[in-house]
Amino acid sequence: MFPGATDERGGSDTAGDAADRGDVNFVVVGAPLDATTTFQPGTRFGPRRIRTFAETFDDYDRRTDQYFSDLGVADHGDVRAWDDVSDYLEWLEGTLRDIVWDDAVPLLLGGEHTVSLAGVRAVEPEVFVCLDAHLDLRDDYDGNDLSHACVTRRILEEESVEEAIVLGARTGSEAEWDRADADDVTVVPPEDVADFTFGDRLEDREVYLSVDIDGADPAYAPGTGTMEPFGLEPREMRDVVREVAPRATGFDVVEVNDRDEGQAASLAGKLLREYVYANAAAAGASDDE
Amino acid sequence: MFPGATDERGGSDTAGDAADRGDVNFVVVGAPLDATTTFQPGTRFGPRRIRTFAETFDDYDRRTDQYFSDLGVADHGDVRAWDDVSDYLEWLEGTLRDIVWDDAVPLLLGGEHTVSLAGVRAVEPEVFVCLDAHLDLRDDYDGNDLSHACVTRRILEEESVEEAIVLGARTGSEAEWDRADADDVTVVPPEDVADFTFGDRLEDREVYLSVDIDGADPAYAPGTGTMEPFGLEPREMRDVVREVAPRATGFDVVEVNDRDEGQAASLAGKLLREYVYANAAAAGASDDE
Amino acid sequence: MFPGATDERGGSDTAGDAADRGDVNFVVVGAPLDATTTFQPGTRFGPRRIRTFAETFDDYDRRTDQYFSDLGVADHGDVRAWDDVSDYLEWLEGTLRDIVWDDAVPLLLGGEHTVSLAGVRAVEPEVFVCLDAHLDLRDDYDGNDLSHACVTRRILEEESVEEAIVLGARTGSEAEWDRADADDVTVVPPEDVADFTFGDRLEDREVYLSVDIDGADPAYAPGTGTMEPFGLEPREMRDVVREVAPRATGFDVVEVNDRDEGQAASLAGKLLREYVYANAAAAGASDDE
Amino acid sequence: MFPGATDERGGSDTAGDAADRGDVNFVVVGAPLDATTTFQPGTRFGPRRIRTFAETFDDYDRRTDQYFSDLGVADHGDVRAWDDVSDYLEWLEGTLRDIVWDDAVPLLLGGEHTVSLAGVRAVEPEVFVCLDAHLDLRDDYDGNDLSHACVTRRILEEESVEEAIVLGARTGSEAEWDRADADDVTVVPPEDVADFTFGDRLEDREVYLSVDIDGADPAYAPGTGTMEPFGLEPREMRDVVREVAPRATGFDVVEVNDRDEGQAASLAGKLLREYVYANAAAAGASDDE
Amino acid sequence: MFPGATDERGGSDTAGDAADRGDVNFVVVGAPLDATTTFQPGTRFGPRRIRTFAETFDDYDRRTDQYFSDLGVADHGDVRAWDDVSDYLEWLEGTLRDIVWDDAVPLLLGGEHTVSLAGVRAVEPEVFVCLDAHLDLRDDYDGNDLSHACVTRRILEEESVEEAIVLGARTGSEAEWDRADADDVTVVPPEDVADFTFGDRLEDREVYLSVDIDGADPAYAPGTGTMEPFGLEPREMRDVVREVAPRATGFDVVEVNDRDEGQAASLAGKLLREYVYANAAAAGASDDE
Amino acid sequence: MFPGATDERGGSDTAGDAADRGDVNFVVVGAPLDATTTFQPGTRFGPRRIRTFAETFDDYDRRTDQYFSDLGVADHGDVRAWDDVSDYLEWLEGTLRDIVWDDAVPLLLGGEHTVSLAGVRAVEPEVFVCLDAHLDLRDDYDGNDLSHACVTRRILEEESVEEAIVLGARTGSEAEWDRADADDVTVVPPEDVADFTFGDRLEDREVYLSVDIDGADPAYAPGTGTMEPFGLEPREMRDVVREVAPRATGFDVVEVNDRDEGQAASLAGKLLREYVYANAAAAGASDDE
Ligand SMILES: [Mn+2]
Ligand SMILES: [Mn+2]
Ligand SMILES: [Mn+2]
Ligand SMILES: [Mn+2]
Ligand SMILES: [Mn+2]
Ligand SMILES: [Mn+2]
Ligand SMILES: [Mn+2]
Ligand SMILES: [Mn+2]
Ligand SMILES: [Mn+2]
Ligand SMILES: [Mn+2]
Ligand SMILES: [Mn+2]
Ligand SMILES: [Mn+2]
Repeated sequence: MFPGATDERGGSDTAGDAADRGDVNFVVVGAPLDATTTFQPGTRFGPRRIRTFAETFDDYDRRTDQYFSDLGVADHGDVRAWDDVSDYLEWLEGTLRDIVWDDAVPLLLGGEHTVSLAGVRAVEPEVFVCLDAHLDLRDDYDGNDLSHACVTRRILEEESVEEAIVLGARTGSEAEWDRADADDVTVVPPEDVADFTFGDRLEDREVYLSVDIDGADPAYAPGTGTMEPFGLEPREMRDVVREVAPRATGFDVVEVNDRDEGQAASLAGKLLREYVYANAAAAGASDDE
Repeated sequence: MFPGATDERGGSDTAGDAADRGDVNFVVVGAPLDATTTFQPGTRFGPRRIRTFAETFDDYDRRTDQYFSDLGVADHGDVRAWDDVSDYLEWLEGTLRDIVWDDAVPLLLGGEHTVSLAGVRAVEPEVFVCLDAHLDLRDDYDGNDLSHACVTRRILEEESVEEAIVLGARTGSEAEWDRADADDVTVVPPEDVADFTFGDRLEDREVYLSVDIDGADPAYAPGTGTMEPFGLEPREMRDVVREVAPRATGFDVVEVNDRDEGQAASLAGKLLREYVYANAAAAGASDDE
Repeated sequence: MFPGATDERGGSDTAGDAADRGDVNFVVVGAPLDATTTFQPGTRFGPRRIRTFAETFDDYDRRTDQYFSDLGVADHGDVRAWDDVSDYLEWLEGTLRDIVWDDAVPLLLGGEHTVSLAGVRAVEPEVFVCLDAHLDLRDDYDGNDLSHACVTRRILEEESVEEAIVLGARTGSEAEWDRADADDVTVVPPEDVADFTFGDRLEDREVYLSVDIDGADPAYAPGTGTMEPFGLEPREMRDVVREVAPRATGFDVVEVNDRDEGQAASLAGKLLREYVYANAAAAGASDDE
Repeated sequence: MFPGATDERGGSDTAGDAADRGDVNFVVVGAPLDATTTFQPGTRFGPRRIRTFAETFDDYDRRTDQYFSDLGVADHGDVRAWDDVSDYLEWLEGTLRDIVWDDAVPLLLGGEHTVSLAGVRAVEPEVFVCLDAHLDLRDDYDGNDLSHACVTRRILEEESVEEAIVLGARTGSEAEWDRADADDVTVVPPEDVADFTFGDRLEDREVYLSVDIDGADPAYAPGTGTMEPFGLEPREMRDVVREVAPRATGFDVVEVNDRDEGQAASLAGKLLREYVYANAAAAGASDDE
Repeated sequence: MFPGATDERGGSDTAGDAADRGDVNFVVVGAPLDATTTFQPGTRFGPRRIRTFAETFDDYDRRTDQYFSDLGVADHGDVRAWDDVSDYLEWLEGTLRDIVWDDAVPLLLGGEHTVSLAGVRAVEPEVFVCLDAHLDLRDDYDGNDLSHACVTRRILEEESVEEAIVLGARTGSEAEWDRADADDVTVVPPEDVADFTFGDRLEDREVYLSVDIDGADPAYAPGTGTMEPFGLEPREMRDVVREVAPRATGFDVVEVNDRDEGQAASLAGKLLREYVYANAAAAGASDDE
Repeated sequence: MFPGATDERGGSDTAGDAADRGDVNFVVVGAPLDATTTFQPGTRFGPRRIRTFAETFDDYDRRTDQYFSDLGVADHGDVRAWDDVSDYLEWLEGTLRDIVWDDAVPLLLGGEHTVSLAGVRAVEPEVFVCLDAHLDLRDDYDGNDLSHACVTRRILEEESVEEAIVLGARTGSEAEWDRADADDVTVVPPEDVADFTFGDRLEDREVYLSVDIDGADPAYAPGTGTMEPFGLEPREMRDVVREVAPRATGFDVVEVNDRDEGQAASLAGKLLREYVYANAAAAGASDDE
């Protein structure tokens, strides 16, 4: 279970009951999909790695003066993955949609990036903000249009989604870069992320925030499927998360595997918590108004 | 390239030319499929691990007084895998069938066990002999009938195949054990493998020999997806390989991943060589008659 | 959660509710104590490693024709450990005693061997049967009489316990060996375990069975704190477990850490299951009489 | 032995003779305590890891134009740890106090951060300067007031100590942050360390400098018990060490374990050497005056 | 084979045919020498690690609008190393000289840094530019003047070489630093690399560019023989490579071993590609003039 | 220092003083040579690994009723290795010869197998008994006649040596096997070692006993340079050591590296202790007569 969360799992690690979500504001859902990773596999172990390495974090956050365990976070457990990606996404979407209907924010733990598609379908945001080394704008990869290398492309095809903002992207095919030139995509290269601000671009719009851990430089997250050097610093990622969090009604962190000493999982868990603290603080502030 | 083999790869590691196979008796083909592994993934790295850890073996085999590099082994490189297992198996089968048509023996390096299905379809044996911890007799697994947990079942459905002999099997579902009770399946538990002999069961029959490395006890092959304790000793596996090799016109070794220090790959490479030495020695002996 | 068990954990991984144990015959309890390990630490990760590596095992057991998930196994989660070993043991004993009072068998997942003392105090057996490389008969270790190196000595001091039978022991201090010469201790060296049988020694007596994973040769369980070569084969351990299980009303497997590729945890989980299958089968058989 | 040091160990690795310390200015002491680490254990291997990974460093330092082996560094070996933390600290303090009496600077290699308490008691500084991700200001942790999470709190209770300056701290409980608001604690968050200078705060005061390696971002020191993202850059840590070293009469580097490829140990050994070079250079400069 | 390159290897991994190099502009050559590494060995696995971890990189480079596979890169395979370093360098030089004679640029994959000497002898540059933590200016190391710790010194003794510029160097013996004070050596410490530019120093001069991966901070390249903290950021290394590439007619990346999770190899492969893109883009630009 | 030994090292880990050896019967010498390993390097870390993993062993041996620390074992530290193998062997031989002259038995910790040559030259035995997967009977390897693959051949050329008995050998070149057919070589394949006895072959002859850890099956010693499946069980090795020890006046254990979790080092340390216990017990017994 995610440390500090309450436990929704009734009788197994992989099938949670959503029973009574009166006080629940956020629901952690593990989505250990590991079907289309092309190089180093292991995202199936991502959710449990993230939960484990989050155990060492303090419950209390000084910046926002909040306790994580006070913020109404439940852990639904994992939605166990199987081979049929399309079917799995549909099933996962159902779980996430229930959370949205319960007025809670889904916090998805990947698994490969493909699972963000289920998150977006459940949340129906207007803007998809993403930290990623890759554009993920392929039309298909090896004939598979549900590859993790296509996820931002697929998300742009969702009806609700008006644009994607990809921060930290530093590689892609020529076709992806051409797609990225269209009006509905903004790419912020790693070098520019520190100085980038959203200004009023997110104002009055619903946002989904997705953190592909490979957005970080490999030094900070070696446990991911396709390392891409020259990446983001964790503090840059954190600052993006803090800025976007108040607007974002869906969140995920993906592409963590078990092939390092926990650096990737530790960073992933920390960014999830930054999201929750910042989102809750903003909600609290607006409640106070 | 498999040490001691000649290189068929024209311009890439993953697409070989089969050009001129005049003196070729055996063709190594890597099949790095890693799509249906349910626990620890990494079989995609199996072929390269096996080739690497085979580099330390002596070319010469005292028992049969042969040099591996004299036996006409070519390495075709890998048949690069993708997500669609059914399509991939068909493509792989084509590569293997070409080898059979060239009167050579395919030596398949897995990859997950599913690839044996392509091997059997290319070779069309009457008997499928298999070293495996698992029965692999499921009708489907999570709805997927091409899961590695179904491969022996699928192979029994091939027209040419009359029976399967599974050595070292020690676990399965109730349905698998019931299927194993049928006349066309023989299961030899690990405890009985040392004393088991085929007698004349293989005489005048075409055989395909498949080595799932998890047939070995985990101590000898920790680098595999689903460790199952109480397994075979390497010498027991070797003796089975030596006995079956003269009859077997197709061979594979599968389910090796990169999650140990090379023990699984080293054993896999050694068993492949034992197969080649024993098959070649028997062929040489019958040539001499 | 232990695969195949039902989940007793109410709201966290570390504090289970024992609510209604009507159909429960066995209760898994994690005891991640890691306080007195003298060489390689990490037993705190033992319970989660064992649960994880047990995920690959088939639910069905052909030998006894039973499903693990039918046998009434619940998982209580972990009893979180802290620095004060004496206090912790008392707390843990309470949890285990509740299980005994509910007519269920506690299945303890270590954690260091010291936790067996809590198990024995809860179960109050007459005979303590133990698989271990070490005698664990020290009076104290570095002044600590609750060190894992003293656990069998401490257990012999419990009122209910009449004797200890240690199988696989191959090392100890001179004082330990002298203590082992007393009438209430039987040591079976690794070389003799294969041929050893309990005869009627356990008849009509209550037994507690403890598996220190370092009883196995390091090849089979490198993930333990103090490797000791020349150890047991897993099948020898399994056969002891099968023989003792029908008499044993308490069981633990201890000293597994996270410093290997899962071999130790895989063996530990398997031996626990062998215990459950054998105990349940015997119970079922006697029910049938 | 620490590379470049002379060896004080008489007849064993763990018990040194302090014999004749005429020319000795610094004495390395290993303190492999590993009793209260709450997540990933292994600090017991810290001293030997640090010594090993320091073997590759050049003896000569260009910046200060000094040879490490000329600076009068002796290695006392390790003070072997046992379970009773309170007793151990007392014993360790004795060893360190001898060093202080011999007019040498103790250089403590942890072991968990708790060992700094022995260092401070031996050195009796007025200011405790610390690089750490954590405040370590808890009153107790799980009832243990000698947990490594309480060490700075305990140190502030020492008679000689007037204040603590914690650089790089980024997490703590609410009570810790409240304690940190008191006048005797200065917290410099990681973001501000690069621009922080001590000014004249250390002038004419005795200082003890403690480096908890987890002050560094996990990318630079994954081999530590509780990784905390968003940490310090090694050069920032080095610059603090260089600035404080001339004033510091006691030094330690702690919380290194064996769970990475040597990054944490390499950084730790380097920072120790930076301390020695800077302290010796300042001493030499003042001697020259 | 290096991903995106064509394959020159005729019949084995270690002996390439240079046949027809009509369209070849760059030739990758593996030089797995691992003879004089003083601490952590494993550079013998460097070439294969670099090739493997380069598999995930996109073929297309947006900055220069080029496809790697269009740039005429061939992979010659490895020049298998043996014990006699002097003989090996001579043999390797022959292979590289052939490449130079074919008007192609050799791209050497180490192996230890010593192999750069063969590269320089084949290319005969006037300037040796090097990214390295170490000066490598020793006259000999343990009596061996072909140690990797002497390579820049040896290179300065080559007739063609007028000067060496070492970026990122942060350690050396006193004699090395004194040698570095001579006019023909420029040392740029890590702190100054970001702001350093070559100005017109390389204009109209032939340059050889060597990347010792330990120039990077250990966080970015833990898989190297002698980690040295306080190193370069990957983007700083990349910018040097981009600036020097248009002038450099020889390139190598060395000192990568297999003792990390691929971070060092990933960075090495990326820097090689940056070199090729930048060199080719400059060549294309000058062709267009 | 080897646990239980006294320390001969004066002022450094790598240069011991042999001062006064009045009561010394055995002297441990580390020989971390790592120059000719052809596959996985790391034997340079062998001596420290063996010492470290021997720390967990009990001082007392029940079989012989002796304390290791009573048997007069000193640890000389390591004889630091460098690149020139021939020179190094000569230097090492000097150190070992001193030990022999002091009437003590050298206990050499490799390092690669080549170091046995120094041991044999110092001890001048008539019979060389060796546990090894490999014949090591090559005349040279890649032109190097001091490769570890030649060591038994070189030893047979020493004047004192009349014959070599190699137990566990299972691979070699044709020339090696032919050399092995000569009268002065006996090869006992792994399958026959359990039943092999020396009879009176060693009677009244001086013997040197060398344990190449790769004689063990890779399951028991994965941390070695060239794994060779189908090897010895540790108990078989132990029984050979026990039988030969009373006659052997020199002993070594070699080819341990740092690429496993300590299994190889643990076994190596144990076999060394078995040698010492058995040799000392026999000496004691003959003293008693
Ligand atoms: Mn992505
Ligand atoms: Mn990505
Ligand atoms: Mn299978
Ligand atoms: Mn299997
Ligand atoms: Mn025990
Ligand atoms: Mn034990
Ligand atoms: Mn601390
Ligand atoms: Mn800390
Ligand atoms: Mn260099
Ligand atoms: Mn360097
Ligand atoms: Mn050998
Ligand atoms: Mn050998």
